[in-house]
Amino acid sequence: MPELRILDVKQSLLGDNDRRAAALREQLHSKNTFLLNLMSAPGSGKTTLLRRTAQALKGEIPMAVMEADIDSDVDARTMQEEGVEVVQLHTGGLCHLDAEMTAQGLTGLKREKPGLIVLENIGNLVCPAEFDTGASRNAMILSVPEGDDKPLKYPLMFTVCDVLLINKIDTLGVFDFDIEACTRRARRLNPKLEVIPVSAKTGEGIDRWADWLRRAIRDWQAEGEKARQG
Amino acid sequence: MPELRILDVKQSLLGDNDRRAAALREQLHSKNTFLLNLMSAPGSGKTTLLRRTAQALKGEIPMAVMEADIDSDVDARTMQEEGVEVVQLHTGGLCHLDAEMTAQGLTGLKREKPGLIVLENIGNLVCPAEFDTGASRNAMILSVPEGDDKPLKYPLMFTVCDVLLINKIDTLGVFDFDIEACTRRARRLNPKLEVIPVSAKTGEGIDRWADWLRRAIRDWQAEGEKARQG
Repeated sequence: MPELRILDVKQSLLGDNDRRAAALREQLHSKNTFLLNLMSAPGSGKTTLLRRTAQALKGEIPMAVMEADIDSDVDARTMQEEGVEVVQLHTGGLCHLDAEMTAQGLTGLKREKPGLIVLENIGNLVCPAEFDTGASRNAMILSVPEGDDKPLKYPLMFTVCDVLLINKIDTLGVFDFDIEACTRRARRLNPKLEVIPVSAKTGEGIDRWADWLRRAIRDWQAEGEKARQG
Repeated sequence: MPELRILDVKQSLLGDNDRRAAALREQLHSKNTFLLNLMSAPGSGKTTLLRRTAQALKGEIPMAVMEADIDSDVDARTMQEEGVEVVQLHTGGLCHLDAEMTAQGLTGLKREKPGLIVLENIGNLVCPAEFDTGASRNAMILSVPEGDDKPLKYPLMFTVCDVLLINKIDTLGVFDFDIEACTRRARRLNPKLEVIPVSAKTGEGIDRWADWLRRAIRDWQAEGEKARQG
């Protein structure tokens, strides 16, 4: 197993996060790299989902992961076991990532042109939604035990995401969670939101998620091509 | 059902949160009021636990709740149905509460001397841990589906709390959660932490939680008495 790199990342001093994010997106386009910003509450299953994602795309799309974790490296080690290149970002207790921190994280990855880089954001449904990281797309996980009312309580997170994964659907029999009601509430905030029910534990729905990713990466690369010819 | 009061609360401009918190605690002591700051991740079951708490203490300890919710009043209405006085705090999307916001919230409660006031903090395991609200005691809920590794990932939250409620123990058969391992990890950060496994859904463990509350309120009032006698 390769050595685990750990980076201390620091917030932008400039305060102009939106400009930094736009510059990062341009840089990603120029390298044909798709950066997915993955957000959720603590314990929703981000790392297990990423393991499944790595398995689904193995041999097809090169993948790397930046793990933003507050004070441990358990998630990073889990991903390394899947053979995925991982860099661990230490944020010094900060509750979110911004574009500057994301750009610093990218410098910690050895691979020059991975097809897919996933930024596993801090487990928090509030602050990460407020900061554009410069990612190509935003994804969030809501897990069944958290409840179908979460779009009412954390509206910004549902508004800024391109895709919502409803995870732990293998526990639908145990919890009172209405996928249709949740989807309706989320789409009221964000009509274009893609909603994909999955179980990272059993693998159910992972095919659909992998298809969404393939399409999103293709679209991103086409946008970059167009911009270059533009 | 009484009209639901909604307060817009704003952060302290002074930046001296610790001093504000100490002043608030003194004020609570002088009124024999016990303020519990209840924190957790989204969807851990704070509101259901508070319903159970209200039922357990009914006719014994007067109770009021301040609900800090980002953009809805679903929790406040649920508590009102239990006959508990509720004030809804709107934080304008902020990720935590500080002592000034808490003090503003208290002005929204009609009752002069409730025995117990619960501050239901924002669903977030990161930021709320960084701000002393001026509460008498801090409590947190970790629910079984979130995983027993959370003390490793959100250490500050486990460090600042007096009591940890492990909720949704009725689902222990569905999730891989080791109560002993979780307790060990949490106590490594905070040796005095009280750990109480409960199911707010079935009522299991609520007796022990109500006993902890009775004792904590008694201790708080004795501390206040001692301070008055100098």
